[in-house]
This record gives sequence, C-alpha cells and structure tokens, in this order.
Amino acid sequence: MTDLLWPGDHRAGRIFSDGAFLDAMIAVEAAWSSGLIEVGVAPASARVSAEHLRGLAGKVPVEQLSVAAESGGNPVIPLVRTLRDGLGDSAAANWLHRGLTSQDVIDTALMLCAAEAFAQIQADLAEQISVLAHLTVQHRATPMVARTLTQYAVPMTFGLKVTGWLRGILDAHEQLERLEFPAQIGGAAGTLAAVAELAGSLDDPATIAVQAGCATARELGLSSANPWHTVRTSITRCGDAALGCTDAWGHLANDVLTLSRPEIGELSEGAGGGSSTMPHKANPVLSVLIRRAALAAPSLGASLHVSAADALEERSSGAWHVEWETLRTLVRRTVVAGSQASALVTGLQVHGDRMRANIDAAGDAVRSEQRTMAAIAGNAPAAEYLGATDEFIEAELSRAAAVSRGADR
Amino acid sequence: MTDLLWPGDHRAGRIFSDGAFLDAMIAVEAAWSSGLIEVGVAPASARVSAEHLRGLAGKVPVEQLSVAAESGGNPVIPLVRTLRDGLGDSAAANWLHRGLTSQDVIDTALMLCAAEAFAQIQADLAEQISVLAHLTVQHRATPMVARTLTQYAVPMTFGLKVTGWLRGILDAHEQLERLEFPAQIGGAAGTLAAVAELAGSLDDPATIAVQAGCATARELGLSSANPWHTVRTSITRCGDAALGCTDAWGHLANDVLTLSRPEIGELSEGAGGGSSTMPHKANPVLSVLIRRAALAAPSLGASLHVSAADALEERSSGAWHVEWETLRTLVRRTVVAGSQASALVTGLQVHGDRMRANIDAAGDAVRSEQRTMAAIAGNAPAAEYLGATDEFIEAELSRAAAVSRGADR
Amino acid sequence: MTDLLWPGDHRAGRIFSDGAFLDAMIAVEAAWSSGLIEVGVAPASARVSAEHLRGLAGKVPVEQLSVAAESGGNPVIPLVRTLRDGLGDSAAANWLHRGLTSQDVIDTALMLCAAEAFAQIQADLAEQISVLAHLTVQHRATPMVARTLTQYAVPMTFGLKVTGWLRGILDAHEQLERLEFPAQIGGAAGTLAAVAELAGSLDDPATIAVQAGCATARELGLSSANPWHTVRTSITRCGDAALGCTDAWGHLANDVLTLSRPEIGELSEGAGGGSSTMPHKANPVLSVLIRRAALAAPSLGASLHVSAADALEERSSGAWHVEWETLRTLVRRTVVAGSQASALVTGLQVHGDRMRANIDAAGDAVRSEQRTMAAIAGNAPAAEYLGATDEFIEAELSRAAAVSRGADR
Amino acid sequence: MTDLLWPGDHRAGRIFSDGAFLDAMIAVEAAWSSGLIEVGVAPASARVSAEHLRGLAGKVPVEQLSVAAESGGNPVIPLVRTLRDGLGDSAAANWLHRGLTSQDVIDTALMLCAAEAFAQIQADLAEQISVLAHLTVQHRATPMVARTLTQYAVPMTFGLKVTGWLRGILDAHEQLERLEFPAQIGGAAGTLAAVAELAGSLDDPATIAVQAGCATARELGLSSANPWHTVRTSITRCGDAALGCTDAWGHLANDVLTLSRPEIGELSEGAGGGSSTMPHKANPVLSVLIRRAALAAPSLGASLHVSAADALEERSSGAWHVEWETLRTLVRRTVVAGSQASALVTGLQVHGDRMRANIDAAGDAVRSEQRTMAAIAGNAPAAEYLGATDEFIEAELSRAAAVSRGADR
Repeated sequence: MTDLLWPGDHRAGRIFSDGAFLDAMIAVEAAWSSGLIEVGVAPASARVSAEHLRGLAGKVPVEQLSVAAESGGNPVIPLVRTLRDGLGDSAAANWLHRGLTSQDVIDTALMLCAAEAFAQIQADLAEQISVLAHLTVQHRATPMVARTLTQYAVPMTFGLKVTGWLRGILDAHEQLERLEFPAQIGGAAGTLAAVAELAGSLDDPATIAVQAGCATARELGLSSANPWHTVRTSITRCGDAALGCTDAWGHLANDVLTLSRPEIGELSEGAGGGSSTMPHKANPVLSVLIRRAALAAPSLGASLHVSAADALEERSSGAWHVEWETLRTLVRRTVVAGSQASALVTGLQVHGDRMRANIDAAGDAVRSEQRTMAAIAGNAPAAEYLGATDEFIEAELSRAAAVSRGADR
Repeated sequence: MTDLLWPGDHRAGRIFSDGAFLDAMIAVEAAWSSGLIEVGVAPASARVSAEHLRGLAGKVPVEQLSVAAESGGNPVIPLVRTLRDGLGDSAAANWLHRGLTSQDVIDTALMLCAAEAFAQIQADLAEQISVLAHLTVQHRATPMVARTLTQYAVPMTFGLKVTGWLRGILDAHEQLERLEFPAQIGGAAGTLAAVAELAGSLDDPATIAVQAGCATARELGLSSANPWHTVRTSITRCGDAALGCTDAWGHLANDVLTLSRPEIGELSEGAGGGSSTMPHKANPVLSVLIRRAALAAPSLGASLHVSAADALEERSSGAWHVEWETLRTLVRRTVVAGSQASALVTGLQVHGDRMRANIDAAGDAVRSEQRTMAAIAGNAPAAEYLGATDEFIEAELSRAAAVSRGADR
Repeated sequence: MTDLLWPGDHRAGRIFSDGAFLDAMIAVEAAWSSGLIEVGVAPASARVSAEHLRGLAGKVPVEQLSVAAESGGNPVIPLVRTLRDGLGDSAAANWLHRGLTSQDVIDTALMLCAAEAFAQIQADLAEQISVLAHLTVQHRATPMVARTLTQYAVPMTFGLKVTGWLRGILDAHEQLERLEFPAQIGGAAGTLAAVAELAGSLDDPATIAVQAGCATARELGLSSANPWHTVRTSITRCGDAALGCTDAWGHLANDVLTLSRPEIGELSEGAGGGSSTMPHKANPVLSVLIRRAALAAPSLGASLHVSAADALEERSSGAWHVEWETLRTLVRRTVVAGSQASALVTGLQVHGDRMRANIDAAGDAVRSEQRTMAAIAGNAPAAEYLGATDEFIEAELSRAAAVSRGADR
Repeated sequence: MTDLLWPGDHRAGRIFSDGAFLDAMIAVEAAWSSGLIEVGVAPASARVSAEHLRGLAGKVPVEQLSVAAESGGNPVIPLVRTLRDGLGDSAAANWLHRGLTSQDVIDTALMLCAAEAFAQIQADLAEQISVLAHLTVQHRATPMVARTLTQYAVPMTFGLKVTGWLRGILDAHEQLERLEFPAQIGGAAGTLAAVAELAGSLDDPATIAVQAGCATARELGLSSANPWHTVRTSITRCGDAALGCTDAWGHLANDVLTLSRPEIGELSEGAGGGSSTMPHKANPVLSVLIRRAALAAPSLGASLHVSAADALEERSSGAWHVEWETLRTLVRRTVVAGSQASALVTGLQVHGDRMRANIDAAGDAVRSEQRTMAAIAGNAPAAEYLGATDEFIEAELSRAAAVSRGADR
C-alpha cells in the first residue's frame, strides 16, 4: 500500500491495508468456525481454513466488496455472502459466521490489525531507545546552549537534550506495553444468544457459548472475548497510545528542525532531501514528515473519543463507523512515523563544534542565572556549569536498559 | 477508488484519488509549459500536451512514484524526473517545470482536485434543495409533534422541520458559491525570480513572469496565480465549506435516525440496510453513514486550521504536508456524504399517519404552552395551532427557488 | 474579567464575560417586551427598560444565577424568575418572556456578545492592515534570505514577507465582513405559536407574531429573527471567522519567533518579556501568546462544528449546550490575540543590517536557482535578484487601501 | 467558582480555580524554601509558611496578578515579586524562588490541582461503580429489547445494559489509578544548575540540588521531581484519563436520553428539569449536561496533544501556554460531569413494565435470529432467550467488587 499524498506511507507496507483487513476478517471467521467445532456445537465437517477462505475471497476484487459494503453499512455482509457462495452447499458454508454479528468480525479484525501495527511500532521504539541511550552516554559532557522561548537560556549538555527525547519515547513505550487487544464475540447485541441457541441440544449451552468465544480469541492470539460493542476503551486506548508516540517523535523532530537551521547548525539529518528547483538544498525531510504526523494525529485521536462518547444502545449509529478508517489512518501513520524516527535518530549528525561556537557566541549572558545564584549564596560562580543532571540522566538510562533487556528476551 | 473501511467511498469515483491528483499535477506542468511559450519565454518546441505527459507518467506505477516521493518529501520531484526522462533530450524536457517549485505544483493541483469535488458537491446540494423545497410545500400542513431535549414540546408541521433541513443546506450552498480556487505560481519562495531570470533577455522580465502565471491559471480554469505558500486561506476555506455541508447533512441524518426508530416511526429510509445475522432488520444505513461523515469531519477541518496557524517563513515544515491527505480525505468524504444525502432525501418515506398518532398520544400536555399564553392574553386557546411559520418557510423557499433558477442557467 | 491561566485575557475586558452575557440576555427580554407592545399584543404598561431589569438582576449575584441554572439546564429559567420576582405583580412581570423560549434568549444573547467582540476584532484587523501596508512599502527593497523547510532558499525582500502576513489578515477581515448576527425569536419549537396565541384576539395573529420578532431584532441591531434552533450556521461561521484571524496571526507570530532567534536576529519585539530567574532574557512574549491562541483555536472551532452536526429535532440534547462556553472562549481569546497582534506589529523592530548579513552569510548557494535558470535561458544571471513581486504586493496594498477607506467612513 | 455558560460548574467548587491555582503556586514556593533549608542550602531563617505567603498574596487581587502576568507571559513573575515585596528585607525574601524557573512553579502547581481534581473524580467513579454494580444485580433478569442502529435487535436484560455502562466506568477508574503527578524542579533549563550554584559551598552540590527537589516533591505529596519541561506526558495522560471518564459517562447519558424518550419510556431521570415556557416538561437535564461534557472534551484533549507534539528545545513557545487553561477547563468539566453522573445513576428510575411492553410490541421479529440459529442447529427455539451473559456480567461485577474493597481501605 502506498499513498501519493502521504510520502513514506509505504513504510507501513501491508499493515492495516484493505487487503490486511480483509484477511483479518477472514481469520476471525475461520477461528470462529474452529471454535464452534472445538466446543462441539458445529460438526468437524464445518472446518474451514483461513487460507481456503482467503482463496475464495480472492476471486472477488476487494474493490467490489467495498462497493457492496455500502448497502448494509459494513463489509462483513458481502464478505460472508461471497464466502458462503464459494463454499457451496457444505457444512462449512452452513456454519460460517453463525452466531456472530458484523460488529464482532469488524472489531476483532480491527484488534488483529492494530496488534500487528503496534508490534512494529514497539520494535521501532525499542530501537530508538537503544540508539538514544547510546547517544546520551556519548554526549553527556558535550556542552551546548539551552534555549527557552527561542532565546538563549543557560549552558547544558547535548546528552541532557537527548535524555529528554528518550524520556518521551520511553513513556510511549510504557504506554504500548499496557495495551490490550481483546477479541469480541457477542452476537447481535452482545448476548451470545445465537450461539447458545446453536448449542441448544448440548448441556449448559450458555457456558458452551462462552467457551466458543474464548477458543476463538485464543486461536487469534487476542485477550478475552467479552463483548464491548458500545464500550470503546480498546479503540481509544490504541488512539491515545499512538498519540503518545507521535508526541514524543514530534518533540524530537522539532528540535532537529530548529537545530539544523543553517544559522544554528548543531544537528543535521544523515541525508537531506532535495528540491525540485534549488540544487543546493539539503532539507531535513525526515523531521518534516515526522512533524507532519505529530501535528495531524491529535485530531484523529479526538475523533475516536467523540465516537466513544457517542456510543449508543447496543450498536452506535455512525460513531462506530467513524472508527474503522480513523483508527487505520492513525495507526498506519504512526507506523510510518516510527520507522522514519528510527531512521532519523540512527542517521543523526551531531556537530559538537557548532554547539561550542554557539555557546561562546551566546556570551556571558547565559551565565547570568549562575552568577546571580552564586552571589545570593555568597559563592564564587562556576566558570561554565553544565548542570546537576546525572541523576535524571541515570533514571532514563536505567529505564532504557530495562527495555533493551526486555527486547532481548 | 474504493475504501473497504469507508463504505460508500466509491461514490466519489476518481475524484481526488491518487490517479486524479497525479493527472492534476501533470495538468499544471503542461499548462505552465504553455504559459512560458505564450509569453515568449520558452520556444514553441517546448510545447507538450497534458495527454502526452500522462502517457509518460503512466509508464511508472503510481505506487513507485509514491515511494520515491519520500526522499524529497513530496511527489513532484520524482514526477518531474520521470517526465523529463520520458521526454528525452528535447526542448520540452529542458523547459518542463522551469521556474516552478514543488509547492506551486502541489497546491495548484490541490485546487484543481478541490474544484472538481466541490462542483459535484454543489450539484448534490442543488438537487437536495429542489427535493426539500418540494417536500416542504407538500407537508406544510402535516401536523407532527415537535421534540426538544428528546421530550414532547408543542405541535408543529413536518413542513417546518423540512424547512430547517433546507435552511442548513442552503447555507452550505451559499458558502460553496463563495469558494475560490486560485492557482499558485511563485517559484522557490514566491518571488517569481526564476521565471524572471528565464525571461531575462526580454523586455520587462518581471511583467512577463507574472503574465506566464496568469496564462497558466487561465488555462487551468483557476482564479489568480499570486503565490500563497504560507497563507493558507484557500485551503481552510475549502475545509470550512466542507464542514458547512456535513453539518447540514448531519442534522438531517440525526432527525431521520430518531424519527425512524420503531417506537416513533414517522420517517423511514427508502430502502433499509440488512444485517449479517438478523433477517428482519431494515437499518437506516444512509443516515448512519452520513452521520459518520458529519461526526468525523470537524477534526479534519481542525487539522487544516492547525496547519494554517503553523505556517512558517516561505514553506512550512510539516504543516503544509499535513494538508494534502487531510484535504483529500475531507473533500472525498464530503462528496460521498453529499451523494448519500441526495439518495436519502429522494427516497425518504414520510408517515403522516404516525405523526398524527404520536401527536395524539402526546396528549394534552403539548398544548400547555398555548393554553398558558391564551390565558395570559385573555384569549380562548386554539385547538391545535401549528404555528406562525409561513414567513420563515417562504424565506427559505425563496432562497431555494433562486438556487434552482441558478442551477437551470 | 481576567484569567490567571490565560495571560492577556484582560485585554478583552468585559466582552462576553458572565456579566456581559447576563446583560445581553436582559437586553433580549427588554427588546422583546417592547416588540410585543409595538405590535399591539402587550399593553403599554408592560414596558420595562433593560436598565431597570439590570438593576433587578443585579440584586442577585451572578454566581447564584449560575448555580440555579443547572436544574433547568440553562440560565434563562432562573433569570426570568428573578426578574419577575423583582417586577412584582405588574403588567411588565406578566408579559416578560411571554412567547419566548430559553433558546431564543440565549442564542440571541450569544449573537449580541459575538457582534460586540467581532467589532473589536475587526478594528484591530484594520489597524494591523494599516500598519502592515506601511511596513510593506517601507521594506519593499529590503533584501533578506527566504527560508523554506527551515533552510536558505533564495533572496527576497522583507516587504514581500510582510505582504504575506498582510494577505492573511486581509482574508480574515474579508471573512468578518461577511458575518451576520441574526436574532432568534421562535418560541418553544420555532413555530411562534405562543406569540400568535398571545396575539389571538387581533387580526392576523401570525403576521403580528412575525412582526414582533422583527421589531425585537431591529431594536437589538441584529439581522433577521427567523428561528435557527437546530441550524447552527450563525455559530459555526463565527467560529470559522475567528479561526481565520488566529491562523493569520499565528503565521505572523511564527515568523517573528523564528526571526528573533539570537542566531538570526532579523526581527525583535518592541519590548521583550522578562524571566523569573534569568535577568538577561528578552523573550518574544507577544508572539508566544499569539501562537498559543492560534494553536488552541482550531479545537474549539471543531467543537462548534461537532455541535452543529449533532443538531437534533427542535432542540439539541447537549450539542447546543456545548456552544455557549466554547464560542465565548474562542471569541474572547480572539479578541485578546487581536489586541496583542496589533501591539506586535506596531512595535516590531526590523533589523535590516542583520537581514543583509544573513543573506551574505548564506552565500552563493541562494543564487543557485537563478543561475540554473539563466543557463537554461542562455542569459547572464542577475547578481542578486529579489523577485518579480510588484504585482502581488500591489494587489494586497490595494486591498489594504480599500479597507482603510472603509474604516475611515 | 461558577460559570454562567457552563451550568453545573459550581459542582467543582474551588478546584483548579484561579484562587486554587494561586494557592498551589504558593505551596510550591513554600515547599521549595523548606527543601532548600532541609538540605542545608538556605538558612533556617529563610523558612516561610504557605499560609503566610497566601496572606501576602491575598493583599493583591488575583485580577491584578492576572493582568501583570502578560508582560512576562506567565503569572509566576508578578507573584514572586509580590511575595518578595511582602516579605521585605528578609532571608525568606532573599531565598524565595531561588533556583526555580517559572515553569517549575506552574507545572508543579498544575499537578497539584490535577491531583486534587482526579481524587474527586475517582471518588465519584467509585460511587458510580457501586451503584451500577447493585443495579446490575437487581436487573439481571429484567427483559428489554436490545437496539442496534436505532432498530429492534434481540431480547436482552437491562442488567446487561448496566454492565456495559459499568465496564466503561471501570475502565476509566483503572486509567485514573495509573496516573502519576510528578513535581518538576529543574531551574531555567532543567539542569538544576542554579540550585547547584546555590549549594556551591557544600560538598557535592549536584547531589544536594537533587535532594532539594526530592524534598520538595515529598512535601507536596507528588511523585518524583525530575524535570519534564518539554516532555509533556504527565499533562497528556491527565487529558487522556479525563476523556476516558467523559467517554464512559457520555455512553451512559446517551442511553438515558434515548430510553427516556416519551415513546420509549424505559428510563427516567430522578428529577427532570423544567422549561421556561412549557409547564409540562420534565427534561433529562443531567443527561443533557453530561452529554455536553462528553462531546466537548475530545477537542480539549486534542489541544493538549498538539501542545505536547509541538514541544521545542527547553521551553515551548506557545504550546506550553496552551496547556494551562486547557487542562484546567478539561479537568474542571470532568469533575462537574462526574458529580452529575453520580447524581444521574443514583436517581435513575427504571420502568420494567415499559421494557416488557416494548419487547412485546417489538413482536416476533426480535426472535428471528434465535429461530434461524435453532433451525441451523436442528433445535427447537427457546421462547425468549435473554442471552448467555452470566460470565460477562460476573467479570465486571468482580472488577467492581475489587474497586469497592479498595475504596473501603
């Protein structure tokens, strides 16, 4: 998948593309058929593999399915019809999708796609953590001038700046660690009534219905199967976690954009981007594209919350439908920005000489706070004191090390 | 173009798709070449048609162009390279894109795509205006109960309700009438310096540079060519206008969703949508999908304003890049919702008997305001007074008639 | 009114404060009483002045009214009770608010407050237009380096940069010119039934009801009186117009923030802000506070659109209630930012020497585009060409002159 | 504190009001003075109590402080000046604020105010959990019709519906449990250099500086003191958590709004709100006001994320300034909505007879899914099966019980 108007989109590859989502819906249907067989509701002859179903779905272009999705308001209805047609007059056709509702399939597929995406994001975060931890150590004593409200403030180290970036990324990583991706198996209104009806001839059909859901979730590698048709925490938490990432990368990209201005020159991207008309330019393209993602993400997160807040009865009228494309866009863009952020930190050029030159140019003023304080305390001021930041730096390095150990496991 | 996760997306067809945007960029390059020739800067041998350029671009899959767009941060750079390669060693290759900057091409292409989209939206609005004006007249005396804060209020007519929908849609139409779609021909930093340099051997190169821009805008059917690289009103006004539409349709869809509840039953969609598991259902699918668009649109509009507010120097670092995909998504979804809204109003079923039955069930309470007022004035209360709404209704019908006359021209 | 957490808030003074809104609601009630008398529905003895009502309302602290507003969901109910209590057993008490609904009073009061606010904003825009037009002329030949994506691009003039700011502000001014502030007189559900009932003993009560509304709107200086309870264009257009302003000022503030960086030093604010701990600092505080407003405004605008899109039946359940405080906050902040932007442009220090020095430091590279073009055209490159921007500058100066002429009237 | 335009605002009382924020800033200054004394940097004579400082600050109206905040861009500068003036020529005056920067004081005060607010919100959530758990048990067997996309779906129980509300509120509670409220003690640029300079005559000044920060955080009851000037996770997580709450309450309010429609009548608010003109009305005012908060909150949350993503260098230019008022508004509104939601669930009237009547009116169609499933499985359909929801209900009741046990501790 690519997007001409979102350069870099190809970095997310097939994740959460129409094709991937279709496969995820099919995986849900296949796992559910298995679940029904496993608990004894459906006969063994109803078994059908996801691979076989993908083959059947593949005979219909995804564009055709998309068009057909409108009349019922979602793509499950035409997909099930297509799959049943393909399965012909068989037990598999007869049992396919029985007991599920469209929302079960779509929401569970959203979780499958999100889980795949966040795994990739988490890997990028871990890589960045490792690179930035290394960069922190390397530049722990590299002096530069701190800038507040765009103006010179006091001396600091570049290592401390990197620690700030690192802290944001560690926070994002921590938030992703807490994400859960539950399946949803509830039937028409979250009551599992249809499944229990299917299991009606068995002992304790209600328990069997629940077990079918659990088996399905287990097969898909998702946590739980309890219905959440109009309790959208699983969706909004994905959104919030994505924003945690783009916020952290936005901060990093802003600093690179500013510090790579020609008048400042303290940082530069490994390889700058070209211009269509100015041969000399080396634009900080990765930072530009990352900042783009960071500016655009909050609105998408807000949309997910509006949808959650608009939840109504047993299926929301429109709010639910907002989530699909919004979550997909937000998550894909986060994958893209994550990959770009890894490239940015890996290739980052640090110009210690310019940092030194700028602090010198800033002159005496940047030591005015120090001098004031020394005078208050009756001490002689330090010549150029870079701060009491060891503990803060160590705290983040220690978190970084814990992530790296976790990533090694 | 279709989108599995935004059912109905196919209604927008090719509008603002990757392919359409590519064609729009090519149209800009071709028109610019013509412009340069027209004002005498480039030789006649530099002429190249958009059709020929589309053929050259067509040899490279759009996906490949999208991937190549990342390194420079926008798709113009690889596109120009592709086109020049295709043109070989020729005057056309030599003059292609000379004097332009990537942003000229992208922003002008955005305007071309937006203009096409809004023309279709405007046509849908005009159709809805005509249908709703007719419906207003038809139901001017159809009594129903007004509901405020979900509760019974006083008697009204269904015609008045329709007038409310109509007013919103007329407001949206009015806002679209005011939209302008300017080209942008400014060169690297909006100074036209490169073009003037190209025209250097002629008399008054500055004036010639401006004329080349004007000729290009004219050929593309766009207003003006003055640069607006970091003044983004043309973009935000498109966004605001789109929201004006989705707001109006959202209101309409909300009313249909509520009034088609089985307990109320005063309206229904012409053809309801089915369910994947409940054979009896006839869901108000068009209203659901329209409400979806209306809930999601404001966030996209906000993104466009954040981008405008973040404009910086002669080209914004990230804010500009947000706009492309955001505007496309917002506008396409508006086209889709507009088409669905036309279908909704055209097929709308009005159940006057249920309106009558509900007002009767509401009982005496809905006349309590009337009775209080009559007592205050010392008058005898009217039995069931439907309101003094003629003037309001006439005002909107008159606006509707003006639109219809305009649409006939 | 002040706000400890929004420094500068006092610049908006009493505009749209709780007190101002209370006065506006009272003005609506008084004008409506007059309207009823004017058309012969109420007796002359029902007349009551806004001043007298303000005195009655003033006996109850606004805080008490605010608390009492919750039980009915809006402040009109306790206000009317307070006023009637104050008026005692009189014709004025008997006729007060008769025929109106709470929403009539609140929405009309919102329009009164918005109209006052936008008048002040418009005055600030006009001042800025005048200052920036002057600055454009003054610096039409002042060379500086253009910067795109943070990097050096080509030579330009500072006058052209100012023209860009001017264009944004002219666009904002134009949008404000188009704003309308309609009253709303519709009664319980927009049918005017109650008023007609009050007029029941007269000939043609429906027409008289409409005339009462028109008289009220006229007295309040508002356009039209036709009800728009769930057609919220008047609200969203105010929001969009406010964003048009903050977008334009954000752009301006961003440029000042960047160009007043110590390493660049091309601009500085007239008087910088201090620091609580660093005596040497002169922070670009106005720009910081303006950028704040510009970043925060789009979300508030989005809220207004969500509310408009969620309109339902004859009174929205929650969406309407969102608008009051959201519009107030957005509009007050716009007044504040407008005043700050006037101060910013008026006091702006332009350092032409630093502009010259920076363009020289940028070196030869910024002329690479020029040289390439000259080579293509077979011309000798200009030494330092500042662009063919006269026409663009003239276009904006001409718009500015038209505004100034209008402001003089 | 009250807000005429946000009815119910008084429920948040003094939380996060200007006065409370002023007190919080003073608490930070006092705790910091203590911290400096505790670690031996400042002499014992520098000690000053928060109470004494509040008295000094109280001599200046908060409005005056707000006005004075503009010139430096934040309220700390005039506050420190006021306090030092009040302390006269004393050690306390000399040592006040030494080593801190404005951002330390503001951000730490934000955390103090947020912590107080979230404690109240958490108490409301716990109460709602208890009430809803009870309601779940009570109505575990109360039949009602489920509705999806506004239409009748299948039979369910009201207990299951309550469990859905409960699940959302439990999720919100869980998210609040994870919130952390860190102090921030970093000095001008987060390096603690000024403090170390103050401690310069002691052994190991860097360690002493860190200890002073820790002592301060401890005294304020906040976690950690490590600087986070441009890593805004603590702010955005507060925002996300607030949205978690309003999402959950929005869902609840939506269901009450719909189910208390007169045509449905299954629920009603304990005490409905009145109308200014219609004596018969009993509006679901609490639900309306809660829905208001839920619709408006996501935009405020988005603003906090835009600010976090726009973080720059050692102090953000505008993005930081957005957060103060935005966080305050979001958090206060959440406190208000939380209190209203407690009132709503506590007073909720459940009309089981109407639920029964509606399911009967829905008729046979709502059992169509059941019948289809029974036929597929070759079973006899159950007459009216309310679902296999025991396990789901038990899961939430068990979480609720854990919260109640925790709240009892």
